[in-house]
Amino acid sequence: MRWLRFSRQDTAGFGFVEADRVRVCRGDMFGAYEPTDQALALSEIQWEPPCVPTKMIALWNNFHEAARKFSLALPETPLFFIKSANSFCAHGATIPPPRSYSGRVLYEGELGIVIGKRGKNIAPEDAAAHIFGYTCVNDVTAIDLLKADPSFTQWTRAKSFDGFSPFGPVVATDVSPADLSVRTLVNGKERQNYPVRDMIFAPAQLVSLISRDTTLSPGDIISCGTSVGSGPMPHGATVEIVIEGIGTLSNRYG
Amino acid sequence: MRWLRFSRQDTAGFGFVEADRVRVCRGDMFGAYEPTDQALALSEIQWEPPCVPTKMIALWNNFHEAARKFSLALPETPLFFIKSANSFCAHGATIPPPRSYSGRVLYEGELGIVIGKRGKNIAPEDAAAHIFGYTCVNDVTAIDLLKADPSFTQWTRAKSFDGFSPFGPVVATDVSPADLSVRTLVNGKERQNYPVRDMIFAPAQLVSLISRDTTLSPGDIISCGTSVGSGPMPHGATVEIVIEGIGTLSNRYG
Repeated sequence: MRWLRFSRQDTAGFGFVEADRVRVCRGDMFGAYEPTDQALALSEIQWEPPCVPTKMIALWNNFHEAARKFSLALPETPLFFIKSANSFCAHGATIPPPRSYSGRVLYEGELGIVIGKRGKNIAPEDAAAHIFGYTCVNDVTAIDLLKADPSFTQWTRAKSFDGFSPFGPVVATDVSPADLSVRTLVNGKERQNYPVRDMIFAPAQLVSLISRDTTLSPGDIISCGTSVGSGPMPHGATVEIVIEGIGTLSNRYG
Repeated sequence: MRWLRFSRQDTAGFGFVEADRVRVCRGDMFGAYEPTDQALALSEIQWEPPCVPTKMIALWNNFHEAARKFSLALPETPLFFIKSANSFCAHGATIPPPRSYSGRVLYEGELGIVIGKRGKNIAPEDAAAHIFGYTCVNDVTAIDLLKADPSFTQWTRAKSFDGFSPFGPVVATDVSPADLSVRTLVNGKERQNYPVRDMIFAPAQLVSLISRDTTLSPGDIISCGTSVGSGPMPHGATVEIVIEGIGTLSNRYG
């Protein structure tokens, strides 16, 4: 199933995709839900981020090919930062260029794990049961800020400007992550195309290991990091993150 | 006024302190609220974190005395990280020692700014109007994790274990931050006592500068960083962050 959240005039809701419509549901996407009689054309809705994370955890250095290219040692544990709630944005939304920063802004196409069940210290063999589904993430980065201060790497600021974490358009529940590829298109031209199976820590491992530190809650996202091919988003560009079985997350920059 | 959130049996609510009671209110702490006829003894309630931040931003290197002691250059802009929602905990709660980390854990007593009004690109002269009040924060830190990986400083992981961000007990609206001192007591012994006026970026400046990057929402917290005297929290220790005019945030560790 492919789940989404939407708004339309004064109402908001959630449901799942049926061909070119959304079947509106009542209840809790992650718990007890009930389909209603209402189905809306996807062309009539405004897309919202498909879930409401209490946190978006994002990985750094999680692909073998990128580690080789940048001469990074393989990490012993997942290395991650957090993207703040003000950075979340929906499929179709425009990402506003920061006013307080004029350096390079990069796209990073990523697979996002969506947690479905609250958990702490999740055993490796139980981790799959805590994953509700998968979504597309663009981990937008103000790269020149990262090391602008020699004493403090600014992961948070560089990654958390308003609109810098588009995700969606849907959460897909019936995909097998090891078979997926993540593609990024800038103005229609392919810039990234890498296999998920090249991950250093695979999705279920990430869920288990990260849950040793932090309780994971329904709707939380773990964005699995990007591989090679990340590059600049020019003003006015349309950036699409495409993962077969999930869909295309499309956003204009600026 | 000193605002708090509480739970009691199956109910939850918010209100303000009247002597040794809480005057229960209806509505929105940050908007239209109405006192009810109900007043509960503070001894009868369970304390909850006094607000629900969409993000807790926490400063690094924001005190002149600490910058001198550690030979840090004065930053050109506020340097900050984010503490995740699972790390929030209430006055009186026990902070659980991480199972996945056995190194040193530090207390860092801090003043927290609580945002009252949504804003972006807030002018310096308007910043005070966006501050609802102030609270006490203990920015608990798994210090040996910070630089455990030579290629990636783990600010997020070191700061975001479950329970690592106690704040409260209240949000005080009638305090003048420049007059405050932050004291930290470990098992009753004073370990930190530093003046807020030694800040490199004062509260209103922080609100204005950080709002250039990220929209600030009601309930968001900017924790202003710590000064000298941060140190270890032994297992079983009680740590109190004391700010006159706000109160005492007290938590047991482990």
